Amino acid sequence: MTHPKLHARIDASFVRQGMMQHLGARIVAVAPGKVEVALPYSERVTQQQGGYHGGAMGALADIAAGYAGLTVAPEGQEVTTVEYKINFLAAFQGGELRARGHVVRVGKRLIITTAEVVHLDDDGGESPCALMQQTLATVNKTY
Amino acid sequence: MTHPKLHARIDASFVRQGMMQHLGARIVAVAPGKVEVALPYSERVTQQQGGYHGGAMGALADIAAGYAGLTVAPEGQEVTTVEYKINFLAAFQGGELRARGHVVRVGKRLIITTAEVVHLDDDGGESPCALMQQTLATVNKTY
Amino acid sequence: MTHPKLHARIDASFVRQGMMQHLGARIVAVAPGKVEVALPYSERVTQQQGGYHGGAMGALADIAAGYAGLTVAPEGQEVTTVEYKINFLAAFQGGELRARGHVVRVGKRLIITTAEVVHLDDDGGESPCALMQQTLATVNKTY
Amino acid sequence: MTHPKLHARIDASFVRQGMMQHLGARIVAVAPGKVEVALPYSERVTQQQGGYHGGAMGALADIAAGYAGLTVAPEGQEVTTVEYKINFLAAFQGGELRARGHVVRVGKRLIITTAEVVHLDDDGGESPCALMQQTLATVNKTY
Repeated sequence: MTHPKLHARIDASFVRQGMMQHLGARIVAVAPGKVEVALPYSERVTQQQGGYHGGAMGALADIAAGYAGLTVAPEGQEVTTVEYKINFLAAFQGGELRARGHVVRVGKRLIITTAEVVHLDDDGGESPCALMQQTLATVNKTY
Repeated sequence: MTHPKLHARIDASFVRQGMMQHLGARIVAVAPGKVEVALPYSERVTQQQGGYHGGAMGALADIAAGYAGLTVAPEGQEVTTVEYKINFLAAFQGGELRARGHVVRVGKRLIITTAEVVHLDDDGGESPCALMQQTLATVNKTY
Repeated sequence: MTHPKLHARIDASFVRQGMMQHLGARIVAVAPGKVEVALPYSERVTQQQGGYHGGAMGALADIAAGYAGLTVAPEGQEVTTVEYKINFLAAFQGGELRARGHVVRVGKRLIITTAEVVHLDDDGGESPCALMQQTLATVNKTY
Repeated sequence: MTHPKLHARIDASFVRQGMMQHLGARIVAVAPGKVEVALPYSERVTQQQGGYHGGAMGALADIAAGYAGLTVAPEGQEVTTVEYKINFLAAFQGGELRARGHVVRVGKRLIITTAEVVHLDDDGGESPCALMQQTLATVNKTY
C-alpha cells in the first residue's frame, strides 16, 4: 500500500534521477518512514560474473533509505546522503531486486536509516541480498 | 603509469561488467595495490539535482578499490566485496570523476582497502568528492 | 530467557575479557543467534559531558553482536571482529545500557550481525541509543 | 610537536572523560586537524585472548579523530560523533597503542575524519592495527 501524497513527493524527485531512470529502477511503495524501490535484472546492472553489481545494490539501497528519510523531512527540505555502509549477503542473477528503506531516527539536522535489499526470483521467492545503514542530512530544496 | 600485465588482468574482468560499461566508466591506471577508474559526466550518472549520483560514486569507489585488491590477490582468485562504507564530501556536475583505490592490508582471506573519489573539472582542477573504506574477500575464480 | 549450554560457552569467553570485566559489563541473555549484554552507568564509562562514552557503546555493541555470532559458530571455533559501523542516536546518563546483538547471515567464513544499544532508565523506560552493523570472521579457538 | 593552545583546549575536554582516564589513555600530540592519543597495555583493555580489545581500539580511534575535529571546530563549539566505521587489521599484546586522527573535510555542520591505530612494541617497532572513518557534528558546548 502506498500513500498518494507522499508518493507524489517522492516521484517528483525520482523522475529527475537520470541514473535511476537509466538503470530501470521504479518506486514500488511509499509510506511514512518507509520506501520500497525495485530494480529489474538487465545487463545495465551486472558485474563480471553476470550477477547484480554491488554498485547497483548500493545505489538502490541508498535511494530507498534516502526516500524513506524524505517522507519524514519537513516540507521544502530535501535530504542528502552523508554516508552509508553496506554489507553484501549473497549474489543473484535474474529476477528483480527490492530495496526497502526504513527511518530509524529523525533528528533536527540528521536522519538515520537502514535498508534491506532482497532478491525476488521469477517464482516470487525472496532472499536477503544486502544490508545498509545510512546517515542523511536535511538541506533546503534547490529545484 | 600502468603495469601492462596487471592492467590486462583487470581489463579481463572490467569488460565483463555490464554496469560499468553502461555507465561509461574506464580504467585509467593499474599498479600493484592501486587502481584508478574514471567516470565521465552524463545523464546516466545523475541524481535529482543534476549532480553525480551517490550510487555512481559508490559503484566507482567499490570498483577501484576492488580492482586494487585484485592486483594483489593470488592467480586464479578473484575478490568479492564483503562490505564498504562511503562518506560523501561534496556534490559536483560536469567534468569527470576519478576513484583511486589503494590496498591497506592483505590477509589470507580478507583484503582491506580505501578509495578516494575526486572530481576533475574541465580545466583539470581536482576536488575531493567521497571517501570509502572497504573489506574484500578472496574467492576462486569461476569464469 | 537464556540457553544454559550456550550461556556457558559465552561466559567462558566473557570472563576472560579484562576490559568488559573492568567496565562492569555482564551477559543478560543468550539464545541461538541472539545475545544481550548490560553496562551499568559509572564514571568508568563516561565522556566529557557525563554521558555514556561512544567508545563504551561501541565496545558493548561489538561484544553483544560478536557473542551472537559465537552462538552460531561451529564448536572449536571463535569469532573475531573484521569491522563494524555504529551510529549514535542519543546521549544518556545514569541507568544502564543494553546492547542486543542479532545474527543476520551465517556464511562459511563470515558472519554478518547487527546490534541495537538502548538505554534503560531507573524506571525501566527504554530509549534507542545506538545502532551497529558488523562483520565477523570465524577463526580457530586458541585457548 | 604539539600546539600549546590547541593542546589546552583538548585537555580541558579529555580530563573530563572518565572512561579514557580509567583506561589509562593520554594525549600525545595536538596540531590543527591532527591529534594523537596513546593507550598503554593493561588488563583493563584486553579481550578473551589477552590482546587489545576491539572496543578499546574503537574508543581510542573515536577519541583521536574526534579531538582532531575539535581542533578545527569554531570556539564555543564541541563535536559529537555521529557515526564511525572501523576495520581491525591485526591483534597485538603488550606495548602501547597509538591512534592518530586526521580531519578530511570541514563542513558547516559536519566534519569528516579518519584515524589509524598502530601498535608500538617495546623496541619502538610500529605495526598497523585498525583503520577508522568517522562523521562528527558540531554542537554548542554545554559545560
